[in-house]
Amino acid sequence: MAEFRVINVNVGVFDKNDRVADANRAKLRAQKTFMLNVMASPGAGKTTTLLATIAALKDKYKIGVMEADIDATVDAETMANAGVRSIQVHTGGECAMDAEMTRQALEEFPTEDLDLLFLENIGNLVCPAETDTGASKNIEILSVPEGDDKPLKYPLMFEVCHAVLINKIDTTDYFPFDFDAVEERIHRLNPDCKIFFVSARTGEGMQEWIDWLDSEVAAWNA
Amino acid sequence: MAEFRVINVNVGVFDKNDRVADANRAKLRAQKTFMLNVMASPGAGKTTTLLATIAALKDKYKIGVMEADIDATVDAETMANAGVRSIQVHTGGECAMDAEMTRQALEEFPTEDLDLLFLENIGNLVCPAETDTGASKNIEILSVPEGDDKPLKYPLMFEVCHAVLINKIDTTDYFPFDFDAVEERIHRLNPDCKIFFVSARTGEGMQEWIDWLDSEVAAWNA
Repeated sequence: MAEFRVINVNVGVFDKNDRVADANRAKLRAQKTFMLNVMASPGAGKTTTLLATIAALKDKYKIGVMEADIDATVDAETMANAGVRSIQVHTGGECAMDAEMTRQALEEFPTEDLDLLFLENIGNLVCPAETDTGASKNIEILSVPEGDDKPLKYPLMFEVCHAVLINKIDTTDYFPFDFDAVEERIHRLNPDCKIFFVSARTGEGMQEWIDWLDSEVAAWNA
Repeated sequence: MAEFRVINVNVGVFDKNDRVADANRAKLRAQKTFMLNVMASPGAGKTTTLLATIAALKDKYKIGVMEADIDATVDAETMANAGVRSIQVHTGGECAMDAEMTRQALEEFPTEDLDLLFLENIGNLVCPAETDTGASKNIEILSVPEGDDKPLKYPLMFEVCHAVLINKIDTTDYFPFDFDAVEERIHRLNPDCKIFFVSARTGEGMQEWIDWLDSEVAAWNA
């Protein structure tokens, strides 16, 4: 099996979070590393989407992944086996990565030479939305089986995202999903949010998302 | 539209949680109301499963539902439109119902004459597992599209549950899912956990789950 490390990180003081997040962002900007905070429900397809995205961009950028989980090393193993530089971060039961945990992970994981760093956050639509990690941008992956009502139930998540990927669009035969309604619900909360309709498995719609990410990375690292 | 109320509840003091939870449980036992705490990821099918379960048991038991959400009233509307006594509980951004929030909801929602009360918790596999609400039993609904690795990533959730429903088993053509592996992973964490393989939409496997719930309600209210 390919190699990756596992580290345990400790939660920070809440009222200092924004200061630590800004310091993380400044460090990443100085070293020209774009960090994308990837949020979603459990099983929405974060890892599959990242693998497909990395495959498309790996010849252009140096890429790494920090996998945050309560427990297990499943995702870091998947990334390592795909040849992606990765680290497994265990949050000690915390329901999201905060800025201090991200700072500790950035100390343990070599990122100086990376152009693009993915932070795959804990699977959860509540806590990760409340905590700035210091990422350059935030995205949410909402999968069709979860339903088009999620922006109504978890509005903050959709407010803090720069882009939303509606994933698993190849499963609408099984799961009724109103694309117009979800778009309207997201844009009511966040008019500037980019929305991409994709299937990470079949590749449908992925190019538009990858082009957007590519342009964001290029702009950050310019 | 059918009627239901919306209430806002406030988080309790953490170290008093177990005491308040025990008081909730004692109150419910005294009034012969079985409360089932229903936990799951967003979009795992909590509401659909509850609707099918209620349809099967409504002639035998008086049933009510407390719908906990960060925002929106989608689920309470669905329940009310199906003729189920329901209340929408808003948690003020908190990622789970705690015992104090449940106590406040039980004060606002008439449950004295109910045999069976469902608490549909916030969609999340982390926070709800950490907090005793005072429910008689806990269940988790894990849907096939989420993947069979969830017991590895969110072990506490599977440790605190008395039963797990593996839902959306009609979608295995789209989503590879190892039923033996998930069973083994759950039982390694929690050997006594009941596991039911169901599709709330097609009805497959539902009778065995409903029979189990029926026997639990009868035992509690005896």
